[in-house]
Amino acid sequence: MTTGVAVAVTPASASVEKLDLDPAFALHRGGKLEVRSTVPVRDADDLSLAYTPGVARVCTAIAETPSLVNDYTWVSNVVAVVSDGTAVLGLGDIGPSAAMPVMEGKALLFKQFANVDAVPICLDCTDVDELVETVARLAPSFGGINLEDISAPRCFEVEDRLRARLDIPVFHDDQHGTAIVALAALQNAARLTGRSLGDLRAVVAGAGASGVAVTRILLEAGIGDIAVSDSKGMIYEGREGLNPVKEALARDTNRARHTGSTEDALAGADVFLGLSGSTVSEQAIASMAPDAIVFALSNPTPEVHPEVAARHVKVVATGRSDFPNQINNVLAFPGVFRGALDVRASSITENMKVAAADALAGVVGDDLSPTYVIPSPFDERVAPAVTAAVSAQARADGVARL
Amino acid sequence: MTTGVAVAVTPASASVEKLDLDPAFALHRGGKLEVRSTVPVRDADDLSLAYTPGVARVCTAIAETPSLVNDYTWVSNVVAVVSDGTAVLGLGDIGPSAAMPVMEGKALLFKQFANVDAVPICLDCTDVDELVETVARLAPSFGGINLEDISAPRCFEVEDRLRARLDIPVFHDDQHGTAIVALAALQNAARLTGRSLGDLRAVVAGAGASGVAVTRILLEAGIGDIAVSDSKGMIYEGREGLNPVKEALARDTNRARHTGSTEDALAGADVFLGLSGSTVSEQAIASMAPDAIVFALSNPTPEVHPEVAARHVKVVATGRSDFPNQINNVLAFPGVFRGALDVRASSITENMKVAAADALAGVVGDDLSPTYVIPSPFDERVAPAVTAAVSAQARADGVARL
Repeated sequence: MTTGVAVAVTPASASVEKLDLDPAFALHRGGKLEVRSTVPVRDADDLSLAYTPGVARVCTAIAETPSLVNDYTWVSNVVAVVSDGTAVLGLGDIGPSAAMPVMEGKALLFKQFANVDAVPICLDCTDVDELVETVARLAPSFGGINLEDISAPRCFEVEDRLRARLDIPVFHDDQHGTAIVALAALQNAARLTGRSLGDLRAVVAGAGASGVAVTRILLEAGIGDIAVSDSKGMIYEGREGLNPVKEALARDTNRARHTGSTEDALAGADVFLGLSGSTVSEQAIASMAPDAIVFALSNPTPEVHPEVAARHVKVVATGRSDFPNQINNVLAFPGVFRGALDVRASSITENMKVAAADALAGVVGDDLSPTYVIPSPFDERVAPAVTAAVSAQARADGVARL
Repeated sequence: MTTGVAVAVTPASASVEKLDLDPAFALHRGGKLEVRSTVPVRDADDLSLAYTPGVARVCTAIAETPSLVNDYTWVSNVVAVVSDGTAVLGLGDIGPSAAMPVMEGKALLFKQFANVDAVPICLDCTDVDELVETVARLAPSFGGINLEDISAPRCFEVEDRLRARLDIPVFHDDQHGTAIVALAALQNAARLTGRSLGDLRAVVAGAGASGVAVTRILLEAGIGDIAVSDSKGMIYEGREGLNPVKEALARDTNRARHTGSTEDALAGADVFLGLSGSTVSEQAIASMAPDAIVFALSNPTPEVHPEVAARHVKVVATGRSDFPNQINNVLAFPGVFRGALDVRASSITENMKVAAADALAGVVGDDLSPTYVIPSPFDERVAPAVTAAVSAQARADGVARL
């Protein structure tokens, strides 16, 4: 049978068939999320409760007592996963549409690991003022804001301004998720090698979102000494052309005043934290102190191959799931938000982040070994432990509202 | 047993217990929506496809071929239900938080009736420029924008500017949803009484979002004559102090040049459409032409009680579920968006709205009677009929991209 209407096979649909041969594409067909109702609407009676006229009484009550929005809408359980697509994975500035699969993935993990509803919001703007204004206007619809894959240094100002402006948790996961998991793993690695954080001298390669946040949380947690490098070498006070974020880092770090390369600074260091996408030679790793600790976290290519590093150091961690000790943000963000939402925290304090790291480190317990300083993302003890610690610390810090 | 920790019963939680005695509140506890994953994440292998590293290949493909975002994310099936909370139901300007239960309800109906995923977005801004900018920045995350409960006349400019700017469907449901359903019901009422739309003289009370849109679609569909009133009486050319929207209405309507009250204009009229929240006397209804048609659509209190109107006219419709002929937007918006999304329409044209009305009217078929000029919201034939008509018309109008 023929019809008068030609069915056009567009180049796009042809390419889709080919792409679907890759299981990652096949899994992504049609997206990874849906919105579902949690209440029945079978007949006119249900409709008159869930929608007009019944819903009008609920609206009126919230207009009179604004906090009731947390009891009678989904707002208190829903987080916006917000990105502008400027620093997506290691892919860089690929824009809001191309960032969407990552944000959907994040939303899926929020639900799976902590029963947090999350909505991916990819924004078509990159100016700091516009990002802040847009997220602030969206805020009444959400119980928390998870910022994601916004490039440095804009991400610092966006987060700071939103934290100051909003009374709900605002959390840039690339910074603080990574920082919490890295701190937890480092605490356990130090314990394994009979040292405390205060004994350790660390070198951080990378002064982007995660490098800065990891450095800050390690300072907070009492690291012995820490120095940070960027693509131009070590960051120190007086170096030319530092942006304000790096200037502050220079003031607070690098007591030994390393001024050369990352590799120079590694000689005798106890800890290397790679968050840069660059590479480090085997010789430099070999020059570290005895029982050294290497977290080569760049993805998909670590700064040094974990098997090469393992020849010279005691503990190796990466960002990859196919090697031991995966530093994966999913160990932190679901429980952090669950813990914050459960007590309607008005913000996520520094103490709450450290408490999350302590709880995460604690899950490892007596099973600690060089290949097990951090739990698996699928360890079901993780999210409840992080949740409980974050809720308790929110109460202790006076930011809980429940 | 006693513990050292007092469990505080706050005034809010006490009031929640009391409010929950009302079944509408009980149903709304915790909200009405959730976000769920449509793909499994059981182990590290699943995670490496749905998230890093597999997701990076999908992101890269979208960055290279932007239209692939429709194939490999949920964007092409998800609609933002956007409100600023300024004209919620009959409650007026109650703000974004108090509007949330209505927007959640709308999202729930999108899913239930047409498997469209919808996200409620209540915005903390009311300025036209800010609303337009904010929605435009959100647009990459959505396949369509359903505007809701934004007060007139701002709603007209917000919709017009977003339609001009975005290449996805933008649809202000208070205008066009109501217009589609009212047109469908009026077509059937005319058929029942042996008249065509061109034979009818109509009076519309209300020049807000729905009054203006109903008038426009009836003009489009060839109504014989139509005149519109606002709180100051009939709108006619030369009346003082008309805003631009009403000025345009004055030019295009009221050929008989009624200058008095709504009730005056009803003498001899065939159709009354109440979209105003005001009341109309029994005498005025009695003064209408034989076999008259009354749609008293204000909710929860119709302009005239339907039993009173039924003494004098042939067909009565209301916005209420407890009387026959309910003019309910849920008959239109799910199928309209489903039909538009199915063919990736770049917009919703006037023809598509009229096609939706024709399809909706057609569902009634031979069962037409004075108490059945429009199907029930739970008639399972409705959404598929509207969907098919809207998709076909999108293709005919050249706005389909699939």
